[in-house]
Amino acid sequence: MQNSNDQAWSREEFADRLRGMERYYHIHHPYHVLMNEGKLNKQQLQGWVANRYYYQISIPIKDANILANCPDRKTRAIWIQRILDHDGHPDDPGGIEAWVQLGMAVGMSREEITSLEHVLPGVRFAVDAYVNFARRSDWHEAASSSLTELFAPKIHQQRLDNWPEHYPWVKQEGYIYFRKRLSEARRDVEHGLEITLDWYRTREQQERMMDILKFKLDVLWSMADAMYLAYITDMPPYFNIAD
Amino acid sequence: MQNSNDQAWSREEFADRLRGMERYYHIHHPYHVLMNEGKLNKQQLQGWVANRYYYQISIPIKDANILANCPDRKTRAIWIQRILDHDGHPDDPGGIEAWVQLGMAVGMSREEITSLEHVLPGVRFAVDAYVNFARRSDWHEAASSSLTELFAPKIHQQRLDNWPEHYPWVKQEGYIYFRKRLSEARRDVEHGLEITLDWYRTREQQERMMDILKFKLDVLWSMADAMYLAYITDMPPYFNIAD
Repeated sequence: MQNSNDQAWSREEFADRLRGMERYYHIHHPYHVLMNEGKLNKQQLQGWVANRYYYQISIPIKDANILANCPDRKTRAIWIQRILDHDGHPDDPGGIEAWVQLGMAVGMSREEITSLEHVLPGVRFAVDAYVNFARRSDWHEAASSSLTELFAPKIHQQRLDNWPEHYPWVKQEGYIYFRKRLSEARRDVEHGLEITLDWYRTREQQERMMDILKFKLDVLWSMADAMYLAYITDMPPYFNIAD
Repeated sequence: MQNSNDQAWSREEFADRLRGMERYYHIHHPYHVLMNEGKLNKQQLQGWVANRYYYQISIPIKDANILANCPDRKTRAIWIQRILDHDGHPDDPGGIEAWVQLGMAVGMSREEITSLEHVLPGVRFAVDAYVNFARRSDWHEAASSSLTELFAPKIHQQRLDNWPEHYPWVKQEGYIYFRKRLSEARRDVEHGLEITLDWYRTREQQERMMDILKFKLDVLWSMADAMYLAYITDMPPYFNIAD
């Protein structure tokens, strides 16, 4: 590993190294590659939407934990926008509702999505690990773990570009979420990046932040792994148990 | 689901239904079936031992969380034995050390095991979910979630019976852990079962306990899923990323 006497990276190099972690982003996971190439069947696409819904409903809990651990009023006043964006407010039904619309646009009922009946244990455990990290960590570390948002605009744009051709049966309302996040993620990431570049100053601290970002990438990759085993390999939990 | 007016199960029927959950035990997971049939290669057996080590070192943390939430001195005085069994005491090097011996008996170095370098994110998230359940739940619920121990003696006995034939290269010291747990698990499960049968009295509470046991079974199954994808399907995290 690093020698603790190594010189700290400059602000620019640190930011570049964080951006370089895109190589581990779930955009490269076979499940997402198949999705982007139009090779998922309807059930496999629904499986992703239904499981990812658990991530969507957990994000405001994650952000509320960051608020709960953050004594800095100015940071809270900015960060709270993320909760409003997901849960909704009088002018916006919110990101969770937009995800329900996506679920219905791919052919599920609201009840089927919100009941969490399709959520795989492996997905639940990975998402809960992210929420627990926010609950138990210093708020700067929790805030900086959200920086996979650096890579999100590209994956959303890909879906907007390729789904209409590959999955023409997906209804238009399904695209609201991806468009919404294109602008929100760009704004959120500026704030998250500023907190991160300010907070980790020594080389040892900067390396620690690389590990935190890797942890968050592990969360996303593991979610896709559980879906791959369940819906591509046809081995969901207890698949071989006669009931 | 159940009607909340349904009559509670008798103590005997409740115990029988808990035992019936054995059908979801990881003894039926393809990874364990292959292991028991002698069909794992050395690397696949090592992968299981190295990953399961993370479970072993987390169990005393899980039990310490139960102690930390339990105001009943008599229960603590019995439950603490589990921590002593795993961490060791002057008369016993303990279960974690016995697991390290198993790791060395299957051909790894102590450093390779204790560094956690082989632990897969999916295994880590599943095990952490169990520890977090103990941290955040009523202590009776946390204690009762350990009842997969009902099913453990059979899986340990299988290993003692079949490994010497299937994996003759495994050194003798590897069997200490399994033999140790054969007697400990039988004693622990009596206490865990007593707490459980006393605590859940209404049908609704009993059904809740079935869900808790299912959660713990999900933890074990998900651990095996992550190992299956990594070592049988040859798709460990980031397997397709050139570094």
